[in-house]
Amino acid sequence: MSWNSFGRVFRFTTWGESHGPAIGVVVDGCPPGLALSEADIQPWLDKRRPGQSRFTTQRQEPDQVRILSGVFEGRTTGTPISLVIDNVDQRSKDYSEVAQAYRPGHADYAYDAKYRLRDYRGGGRSSARETAARVAAGAVARLVIPEVTIRAWVAEIGGDAVQSFDAGEIDRNPFFCPDAAAAARWETLIDGARKAGSSLGAIVACEATGVAAGWGAPLYAKLDAELAAAAMSINAVKGVEIGDGFAAARLSGEENADRMRPGDGAPAFDSNHAGGIAGGIATGQPVRLRVAFKPTSSILTPVDTITRDGEATEIATKGRHDPCVGIRGAPVVEAMMALVLADQKLLHRAQCG
Amino acid sequence: MSWNSFGRVFRFTTWGESHGPAIGVVVDGCPPGLALSEADIQPWLDKRRPGQSRFTTQRQEPDQVRILSGVFEGRTTGTPISLVIDNVDQRSKDYSEVAQAYRPGHADYAYDAKYRLRDYRGGGRSSARETAARVAAGAVARLVIPEVTIRAWVAEIGGDAVQSFDAGEIDRNPFFCPDAAAAARWETLIDGARKAGSSLGAIVACEATGVAAGWGAPLYAKLDAELAAAAMSINAVKGVEIGDGFAAARLSGEENADRMRPGDGAPAFDSNHAGGIAGGIATGQPVRLRVAFKPTSSILTPVDTITRDGEATEIATKGRHDPCVGIRGAPVVEAMMALVLADQKLLHRAQCG
Amino acid sequence: MSWNSFGRVFRFTTWGESHGPAIGVVVDGCPPGLALSEADIQPWLDKRRPGQSRFTTQRQEPDQVRILSGVFEGRTTGTPISLVIDNVDQRSKDYSEVAQAYRPGHADYAYDAKYRLRDYRGGGRSSARETAARVAAGAVARLVIPEVTIRAWVAEIGGDAVQSFDAGEIDRNPFFCPDAAAAARWETLIDGARKAGSSLGAIVACEATGVAAGWGAPLYAKLDAELAAAAMSINAVKGVEIGDGFAAARLSGEENADRMRPGDGAPAFDSNHAGGIAGGIATGQPVRLRVAFKPTSSILTPVDTITRDGEATEIATKGRHDPCVGIRGAPVVEAMMALVLADQKLLHRAQCG
Amino acid sequence: MSWNSFGRVFRFTTWGESHGPAIGVVVDGCPPGLALSEADIQPWLDKRRPGQSRFTTQRQEPDQVRILSGVFEGRTTGTPISLVIDNVDQRSKDYSEVAQAYRPGHADYAYDAKYRLRDYRGGGRSSARETAARVAAGAVARLVIPEVTIRAWVAEIGGDAVQSFDAGEIDRNPFFCPDAAAAARWETLIDGARKAGSSLGAIVACEATGVAAGWGAPLYAKLDAELAAAAMSINAVKGVEIGDGFAAARLSGEENADRMRPGDGAPAFDSNHAGGIAGGIATGQPVRLRVAFKPTSSILTPVDTITRDGEATEIATKGRHDPCVGIRGAPVVEAMMALVLADQKLLHRAQCG
Repeated sequence: MSWNSFGRVFRFTTWGESHGPAIGVVVDGCPPGLALSEADIQPWLDKRRPGQSRFTTQRQEPDQVRILSGVFEGRTTGTPISLVIDNVDQRSKDYSEVAQAYRPGHADYAYDAKYRLRDYRGGGRSSARETAARVAAGAVARLVIPEVTIRAWVAEIGGDAVQSFDAGEIDRNPFFCPDAAAAARWETLIDGARKAGSSLGAIVACEATGVAAGWGAPLYAKLDAELAAAAMSINAVKGVEIGDGFAAARLSGEENADRMRPGDGAPAFDSNHAGGIAGGIATGQPVRLRVAFKPTSSILTPVDTITRDGEATEIATKGRHDPCVGIRGAPVVEAMMALVLADQKLLHRAQCG
Repeated sequence: MSWNSFGRVFRFTTWGESHGPAIGVVVDGCPPGLALSEADIQPWLDKRRPGQSRFTTQRQEPDQVRILSGVFEGRTTGTPISLVIDNVDQRSKDYSEVAQAYRPGHADYAYDAKYRLRDYRGGGRSSARETAARVAAGAVARLVIPEVTIRAWVAEIGGDAVQSFDAGEIDRNPFFCPDAAAAARWETLIDGARKAGSSLGAIVACEATGVAAGWGAPLYAKLDAELAAAAMSINAVKGVEIGDGFAAARLSGEENADRMRPGDGAPAFDSNHAGGIAGGIATGQPVRLRVAFKPTSSILTPVDTITRDGEATEIATKGRHDPCVGIRGAPVVEAMMALVLADQKLLHRAQCG
Repeated sequence: MSWNSFGRVFRFTTWGESHGPAIGVVVDGCPPGLALSEADIQPWLDKRRPGQSRFTTQRQEPDQVRILSGVFEGRTTGTPISLVIDNVDQRSKDYSEVAQAYRPGHADYAYDAKYRLRDYRGGGRSSARETAARVAAGAVARLVIPEVTIRAWVAEIGGDAVQSFDAGEIDRNPFFCPDAAAAARWETLIDGARKAGSSLGAIVACEATGVAAGWGAPLYAKLDAELAAAAMSINAVKGVEIGDGFAAARLSGEENADRMRPGDGAPAFDSNHAGGIAGGIATGQPVRLRVAFKPTSSILTPVDTITRDGEATEIATKGRHDPCVGIRGAPVVEAMMALVLADQKLLHRAQCG
Repeated sequence: MSWNSFGRVFRFTTWGESHGPAIGVVVDGCPPGLALSEADIQPWLDKRRPGQSRFTTQRQEPDQVRILSGVFEGRTTGTPISLVIDNVDQRSKDYSEVAQAYRPGHADYAYDAKYRLRDYRGGGRSSARETAARVAAGAVARLVIPEVTIRAWVAEIGGDAVQSFDAGEIDRNPFFCPDAAAAARWETLIDGARKAGSSLGAIVACEATGVAAGWGAPLYAKLDAELAAAAMSINAVKGVEIGDGFAAARLSGEENADRMRPGDGAPAFDSNHAGGIAGGIATGQPVRLRVAFKPTSSILTPVDTITRDGEATEIATKGRHDPCVGIRGAPVVEAMMALVLADQKLLHRAQCG
């Protein structure tokens, strides 16, 4: 089954392949009356855009978004918002080899097993290019939750984690890294991997503040379950944590308890092991999410594989690729956080007024 | 918003509170003609059932399931299957204190923030008792995927991980532990926590073999995204990994590549870092999932909190609780795996015949 | 595919067969804090209940509803509300013949074609008995829309239409007929049909006042489209009209125009050909729906048919049946109107605040 | 709530306004491997295209469709199919008056009541222009059900019904009329209405043959309920009938019984009052649907109305309009029939293999 929609009342549907004429997204259920133009979306796309440093793919995509519907005289009308981004810099000839052989770690074999045919150019639908559509939709979602601030950063690359956190630093380096020293180390790390024809994994952290206590939805649209699905649906993601995540499994009950005290209006919490969510519902604390990206599967180093006909061969993925997909994953995680929160805000309003 | 259904074509809806008269589940979309009686469901409920050792809550629930619809002359009819489990051993008086004060780590405060009222008896809807309904639904799901074998076990408790794997061992100890030596250590560990009025976290691993290459659904019903949502929707879960999960973020591209070779019918893979899923679609390898459970939030040690009126107080959760909820989480993870796979199998059949 | 849920944010899922132990419904998404007890539901079930006059089936079902979840201390908690109605007066032996031969007009053959097996006792899942579950859910829906008044009546039986409308009359006769003279004629008509071993069709009209302008949802959850689906999902329904319905196809544009004038707060309309809906959205005028019920398919007069094995035979449906299913359809149409409106109210609130 | 998607596994989402740059549709869940190019879609759009005779609006839209995704080397890939149709002949200045005053029978007032703002150019999202997107999606749906033949025609205009049926005649006149004599009469009728500044309603009939017994879905995705929702979601539709529809309410049980006899493979039916559907499931007979279109609300004759500020005024809708929207409704009804059947075929396959 193909299932290219996400969300329950604030919903979006993406379409498009890496090397087709365009990609796009239809955002449905957006409240009316919000000021929206391409200028509200473009900056977020620019953050995710490839070809901006030597640490990401050299594919040059301007990623100019056009709004084709749902906006009138500068405001959302409540009808579906169609966003389109043209593909400009396809070089499909790079992919002739991929047509015949399966790249390990890629979706090539799985798509063939499912559909018996696939658009092999740049990974087709399974390409991370699709995430541009999410980022565009996420920009709309942000307008629905102006009270929320979302911030994602890369917390670790190739096992080397940040040691300090300076929010102002995040946008000053090509890694969305909040620690200048780590950013410097990562430069070396990634250059090394690139030269070796290898690639690196990364961990992206994301925090949302201003989420109202009460958003969320027991039981099968829990805020954390929605975030987990949203994050895991991003290319190359293999793990998701809320709050302390796996580390919580090693704490005792007393250590893990987020004690409460009388606060100013809302309760004050001594800690936030829970990552701002209890029973699937926001507590009003910052919502904390961590996402593990595997190393880019496209590597220059040849690896053993098979052809479509089942013959042994080996493949080296030339093309143009991110040596560490996790880096450009940061704006995507941010977008998915915005999309989930916008949906949950509207769902909460539906039931609880 | 309340959202108590899960699945896309094989769907289930659960209902019921910890201390209400009963809990239950309606399973919709089940294929017709499958042999089904209470005897197919009961053994799975028995595995999850409380009160079977001193390592789980002492609440005595027989958890006898009744089938109220959807089965005729021993076979599913294709119409909704209603399963009901009576609550027998409620002791609601245990919860009078909870009515007034918020238990840190529990959903008490979040539910009040959302709904302005809550059924505080035993946590009401947020109680892990709801997972019995999932296990019952999961037993039906297993009939839809007889070609699949699912096995969950506890891989770690309180930071102490298994060192060996003997599948036969899993059902021989009260911890679903595949390592007899670890099981012995855990006994001491949990007894210690219980006596100290504390609790422990755990990691549950789950593996499904026999999943056909091709099941899964780009992009927003990816097999891994569905599993992540399913796992994260279980009480006390804070992290989810597919395949190598967070460890994959520390591998290089070559290390992480699951090389392929000509196989017997299907391709042979040298490794399974991906956990049997690429691009959201099954590769035919075992599907591997790991789930982190936080320590039980209900602890005897008093912790600071506030009352519904915002006054400082402290609370010790007496009642009857699991010192380590992760243990009984194993059968629940197994059930969710079955439910997701059954749904994906039918979805795949819908689109790809 | 089996699909037993209806609604988008205020959703319900029904289950149960005519001759199983019980039928029921799970209502999900209900706002919290609404006063709800069995006493709020029972009167509506009593209106639909069989065996109350000689003009409906003689099956004696007390239709006592029990609330198993979602209500605490007399108020809805926002969690799923499970309602169960036991089946008491099954006489399954009446249906032995139906097991082997297909009743024309019934779902017998279609179910067998779909599922290859069926619960033939009383029509199983295809029995109108399922509508009791809708009526129970509808009673909950009414609490969500206290500002709305819904009134259904039988407007025509066997081609004999009401000539006058007295709302007070509706509950004074066994036909939900607003015209005492018509009710008297229908008595003769139905007695005649019953004695002849025949049955009659009917048209049910339903009107909802107090629906706020703005409820509704372009394009595929239009208020009229939802009502059409809701009505057509009721057993024996073959036609649905909004406002003037088919008669509108015979009006000119000027005749059909609902002219507007300045009103008191809201605009005043000169007419309501549109039935209170324009572009799928409520205009604030009364929402008007008409529903055609075919004559009961279960008739004593023998008709030609075939057996499961394809042999020619004839069948006379003995059992206990309504000579005119449309009569008891009136409370069901009313319930579906309430369910659709409750859902649309919450959907509107989600998007438009 | 805005809800612009339809379908359960074969789903489509439309977007676009009458006078925006383009309209479009994303079709998701389409099986892979189907031969598809623009040439498969264009002929259906051409049938619905405006400006082809003096009996439809004079707006000149080429309605050229472009496929932007989901097709590779001439075959569907199983990923979402994005179809776009540019708007070419907008004349938005025609609509300046509509910005200030509400056209009776149009969605103007209802949209304002809902969203507090609206794209008034040509009705914006509420324009029948959106139905071009459905027709495009319907062309894709037809590929999923090659075994089914769908045929819609106009059965009545302004109360003047066809007296004979010649399928070959349907495409020989500008009314989709199967009766040459009626077509001649309608010419006069519509010319008269147009000259009088008036408009006419119509009834469209649609028949699908080749629908396999078993498609359909009890209870809330019944084939007839889906068709009713699909038809009622079309602009200007006020009534829907399956089989004999309202006429069935005037038949006796014996008259209405579709008697069965042993047939060749499938059973033979003596009649088809039921319109090919029993209990929401196809019987294998032709599926018969009738749809009532109200007269076009846009008329030249001035009618009383109010302004956005609630002042009395009158409005005559100049612009370019169909004197009878029902005519171009025929290809749209056909498309919706195809879309519902494709979805139900896949749903049936999901559950019943």
